[in-house]
Amino acid sequence: MRAAVAGASGYAGGELLRLLLGHPEFEIGAVTAASSAGSRLGAHQPHLPRLADRVIEDTTAATLAGHDVVFLALPHGHSAAVAAQLGEETVVVDCGADHRLADPAAWREFYGGEHAGTWPYGLPELPGQREVLRSATRIAVPGCYPTSVLLALWPAFAAGLAEPDVVVVAASGTSGAGKSLKPHLLGSEVMGSVSAYGVGGVHRHTPEMEQGLSAVAGTRVRVSFTPTLAPMSRGILATCTAPAAPGLTKESLRTAYEVALKGEPFVRLLPEGVWPATSMTYGANTAALQVTLDERAGRVVAVAAVDNLTKGTAGGALQSVNLALGLPEEMGLPLTGVAP
Amino acid sequence: MRAAVAGASGYAGGELLRLLLGHPEFEIGAVTAASSAGSRLGAHQPHLPRLADRVIEDTTAATLAGHDVVFLALPHGHSAAVAAQLGEETVVVDCGADHRLADPAAWREFYGGEHAGTWPYGLPELPGQREVLRSATRIAVPGCYPTSVLLALWPAFAAGLAEPDVVVVAASGTSGAGKSLKPHLLGSEVMGSVSAYGVGGVHRHTPEMEQGLSAVAGTRVRVSFTPTLAPMSRGILATCTAPAAPGLTKESLRTAYEVALKGEPFVRLLPEGVWPATSMTYGANTAALQVTLDERAGRVVAVAAVDNLTKGTAGGALQSVNLALGLPEEMGLPLTGVAP
Amino acid sequence: MRAAVAGASGYAGGELLRLLLGHPEFEIGAVTAASSAGSRLGAHQPHLPRLADRVIEDTTAATLAGHDVVFLALPHGHSAAVAAQLGEETVVVDCGADHRLADPAAWREFYGGEHAGTWPYGLPELPGQREVLRSATRIAVPGCYPTSVLLALWPAFAAGLAEPDVVVVAASGTSGAGKSLKPHLLGSEVMGSVSAYGVGGVHRHTPEMEQGLSAVAGTRVRVSFTPTLAPMSRGILATCTAPAAPGLTKESLRTAYEVALKGEPFVRLLPEGVWPATSMTYGANTAALQVTLDERAGRVVAVAAVDNLTKGTAGGALQSVNLALGLPEEMGLPLTGVAP
Amino acid sequence: MRAAVAGASGYAGGELLRLLLGHPEFEIGAVTAASSAGSRLGAHQPHLPRLADRVIEDTTAATLAGHDVVFLALPHGHSAAVAAQLGEETVVVDCGADHRLADPAAWREFYGGEHAGTWPYGLPELPGQREVLRSATRIAVPGCYPTSVLLALWPAFAAGLAEPDVVVVAASGTSGAGKSLKPHLLGSEVMGSVSAYGVGGVHRHTPEMEQGLSAVAGTRVRVSFTPTLAPMSRGILATCTAPAAPGLTKESLRTAYEVALKGEPFVRLLPEGVWPATSMTYGANTAALQVTLDERAGRVVAVAAVDNLTKGTAGGALQSVNLALGLPEEMGLPLTGVAP
Repeated sequence: MRAAVAGASGYAGGELLRLLLGHPEFEIGAVTAASSAGSRLGAHQPHLPRLADRVIEDTTAATLAGHDVVFLALPHGHSAAVAAQLGEETVVVDCGADHRLADPAAWREFYGGEHAGTWPYGLPELPGQREVLRSATRIAVPGCYPTSVLLALWPAFAAGLAEPDVVVVAASGTSGAGKSLKPHLLGSEVMGSVSAYGVGGVHRHTPEMEQGLSAVAGTRVRVSFTPTLAPMSRGILATCTAPAAPGLTKESLRTAYEVALKGEPFVRLLPEGVWPATSMTYGANTAALQVTLDERAGRVVAVAAVDNLTKGTAGGALQSVNLALGLPEEMGLPLTGVAP
Repeated sequence: MRAAVAGASGYAGGELLRLLLGHPEFEIGAVTAASSAGSRLGAHQPHLPRLADRVIEDTTAATLAGHDVVFLALPHGHSAAVAAQLGEETVVVDCGADHRLADPAAWREFYGGEHAGTWPYGLPELPGQREVLRSATRIAVPGCYPTSVLLALWPAFAAGLAEPDVVVVAASGTSGAGKSLKPHLLGSEVMGSVSAYGVGGVHRHTPEMEQGLSAVAGTRVRVSFTPTLAPMSRGILATCTAPAAPGLTKESLRTAYEVALKGEPFVRLLPEGVWPATSMTYGANTAALQVTLDERAGRVVAVAAVDNLTKGTAGGALQSVNLALGLPEEMGLPLTGVAP
Repeated sequence: MRAAVAGASGYAGGELLRLLLGHPEFEIGAVTAASSAGSRLGAHQPHLPRLADRVIEDTTAATLAGHDVVFLALPHGHSAAVAAQLGEETVVVDCGADHRLADPAAWREFYGGEHAGTWPYGLPELPGQREVLRSATRIAVPGCYPTSVLLALWPAFAAGLAEPDVVVVAASGTSGAGKSLKPHLLGSEVMGSVSAYGVGGVHRHTPEMEQGLSAVAGTRVRVSFTPTLAPMSRGILATCTAPAAPGLTKESLRTAYEVALKGEPFVRLLPEGVWPATSMTYGANTAALQVTLDERAGRVVAVAAVDNLTKGTAGGALQSVNLALGLPEEMGLPLTGVAP
Repeated sequence: MRAAVAGASGYAGGELLRLLLGHPEFEIGAVTAASSAGSRLGAHQPHLPRLADRVIEDTTAATLAGHDVVFLALPHGHSAAVAAQLGEETVVVDCGADHRLADPAAWREFYGGEHAGTWPYGLPELPGQREVLRSATRIAVPGCYPTSVLLALWPAFAAGLAEPDVVVVAASGTSGAGKSLKPHLLGSEVMGSVSAYGVGGVHRHTPEMEQGLSAVAGTRVRVSFTPTLAPMSRGILATCTAPAAPGLTKESLRTAYEVALKGEPFVRLLPEGVWPATSMTYGANTAALQVTLDERAGRVVAVAAVDNLTKGTAGGALQSVNLALGLPEEMGLPLTGVAP
């Protein structure tokens, strides 16, 4: 099968290409971008020597036509128009935000402009979602932060073990902000410093977390979300807490997670007492999880580590595509990270 | 005045020496340690060339005698015995945990062993605490995490603007863990990775945060505290949230902070919309603060950045000593950080 | 085929396991170590979830028996005794230094103790070495620094384009120093700092570089080698210079490298004007090279980037094993790095 | 005295302001810049809270008039025109390159355009230079790399202990490249990676090193210089080698350095066997040096660590200004670094 990658000069595009190179069923077709069209891929992704001489094309309906799968790693607002020109025989995967939110009002509040509609949500680990994705031809890849938060908390809400008043603080590596040339993303600024941003309920991933958790909980879940930027290139560590349901014990909490995650190929509940580090998942399509009950404070505390570019974007996308195409879900996806 | 530093080969000891070198009223007397006694200070603190040839002595009553101020940067459990041998004419400053907690039960639960008693708490910014410290001859330096959390939240609790159900997630640089040779503190492990530890209400700084906030609030405040280790040497970024009191507005919240922090020499409420980064306080005795109301989630969110070794330990210690000795509170303490 | 890894709890051992997990012809047999024997591998290599429950065994002749290949990632001085107990039907790969040097005097000067003898040198890119390795049952894996330096300079010496008076300064990530608990390897010490060590001709990799270059040049090559430690976990960047042979031009220098490296699967001469960064090779078995003539100073300057754990140790080892076993040289080895 | 800083929103400008805040004889007058004129300094230098509300002015003759000292931290090519409008009663300090090179041909080759002439070179440690600076009203601040290289090697050349064929490889933190928004300076790119750039005799600091060393040696010294970018914000580690003069011994080499550096307030020859790390000089106006003879390779190897922004730019500038104004050379300059 042939896959095209639009946005191939960026970080998400580069990660899609890295994973596609390791996937036995795909060959890489068009690689496209906007401002870097015409240059060679090697100038933008020097870690992919096998593709170094590929020329980046413009992102158009013509260059993207004729592929079995088209991955769109574009700024938000651009995916719908491109997808409209690709038939239903093509699996279109939106790594951006355009098709994640079901609520047009939430879209307008957090993104502005017209709502592009909702596509099947590419997080197979959510209850029932694996089945939805098996017949999908359009896939909305979750945001990197929501991936980590939903994986960390869905088992608690599915089992009714937590109250719907969530507090999340997450640290992200800088690649989550993309390759945009902004002063606060310069190496001199980010090395040696952790900073908060998007505080107070304004980060765009907030309604996406609420949407996902509310669906699982069967009630409206509120999320207080604070993202922070950490001095590393990749990785998200999400610390997620919610008031414990009355009578909850540590044992029943852990059992619920063990049951919920049994058989999941990419989500690993760590041995008791071991807490996640992002280095456990560097370059892998895995999530490392731990959960406990803080009896003193009466809260469930779940922590998830993912690689924002792999499980948090490109790997999660490819996992969903495997399902959509009837391939084994794990095919071509790294279970093994790179450490130290 | 002459100051002695016990624990001079460690990170807190090195920071005390750095600041004492810049303080116009102090000369540095004995520098002592345990296992590194007999070696030269330059082998442990190569950034302090003026002290490079000083020989480290053993930490004993004899070596510490005859100083106006003795700073103890020792592992917990060691300070009380040393202090007992130093008269009340000596100001003794415990940078460790031994004399922070008023509740013997909390001490036993979190530290084990016998409670050494309580000394005046060295956080002058807390209501009334500046006056307490002006006559102190014994000072318990707050923990680095509690310093950041108390500075971030006391104005909200003092003004009755938050409910006593706090969630804190904080990122710390590795120097907070000291110079101990543990595998997880190796550079290869910490670079490129953020990790959680001490999760679920078990970190020793938790009761200290609760004690301080409860005193300000006039009611028992619960804290769910999750510390994380970030790939940087210095700095704490503490994200602190609590349910908003009914009817709270963003404006009244900010006003309360402006009033509470007016005239504070070392705590800076950032301009609206600017959020703290630890790089703002690197090497300085300052705290950078911001606060907002998350109307969506109904929570106050306050974020504080401090340098864990400066305002979080050695600088905070010296600030309290300035008060205890009747010196200007700001004397010799850096307001200016080092960046980028 | 079954492979055993001795030293499985260390960084080189972890990288061997990571690569073996991705190799289609190997299953992983015994994983052994010294002090960590009896514990589970997941406690030491949390990025390898597929092996998390493997119990680490003692490194003995009995545990290592019955494998097709045995990889030894042991401190120097330990490999010969282990290898002596394994028959010639087993391919034994020494990732340590014991069998690299041909000159017993150099061994004694730099390592001390008795010389263990010389095994075929596992750098297939050196002239004629690929053939040597095809029949080898014992392989001495090159040191990580010599790998980078030999790859950078052998084409110049093979073509007679440089004088035998080499100066090398190389920056290494901290994993090159292993997991040993030394104060200067703590994260707090290495982050934000580059330091020199082993200066003045005393680093143990110096005679290995001289041996390799001298063999290619056909004359005794002297190397002034200065290693430095950089704030990153992985990667070596080696800057290698030598006086240019009389009459050398930039064009003839580049042509010589193009000819010498033609067809090499893992060594990439970058496009003109592009200089190596270690991030180009992170986690990959590749070397990124560039070379130029400094006409002002009259010197050839060649720069190589490798991942010290992959091409510099475990990947290079597996590449040689592929040759020794008659497998395709590239089998199971990553050409693609992980970036950013 | 009043000092103005032109280029106040950049990294060199920020460091000048940091040091001026700690200098007892200066008040800070105009702070000026180009594109950031009109904004508040706090938006650009959040580590300088005492200056947060200062409004940045345009860099013009009018805004810079009326100061005792004017520091110019401008892109090259801009200083001469500004200086021409400031009378000789004002000490003008060019932190840029415009007035460093004496040879117009070298200027044209490396910078292009017209040569602006030569000002007294602000490196007081060079033989005779302290006297030159005592009467200067114009000062050319050395480049950060040349500062480190000249400090490392001048004692060897002054004593005739090295041959004039120098090889330098230096690692720099990213602040040396300024705040310019270039993709390769993004945090995602620089973290975890060391890269080479400006290789092959083309870096602009090369002729400046040759000029300085040739003057000391009394003969033309050639320098092969390779700069590398390291994942840290600040610091330069320069490894400098040259062929040893015939008959040189380790002892005579060390003695020559001890004699040459005796009494230097800011240059520290480390104890034998201790090699520099940039963390020894972080935020300090110091250089940490070590030197040895590599008897195997027949080369002098000298390594210097400086903070590129402090001793390498702003601190070195202020040190020269102290001399020019008849103030004590050490006044207001930090001898103590910030570590870890």
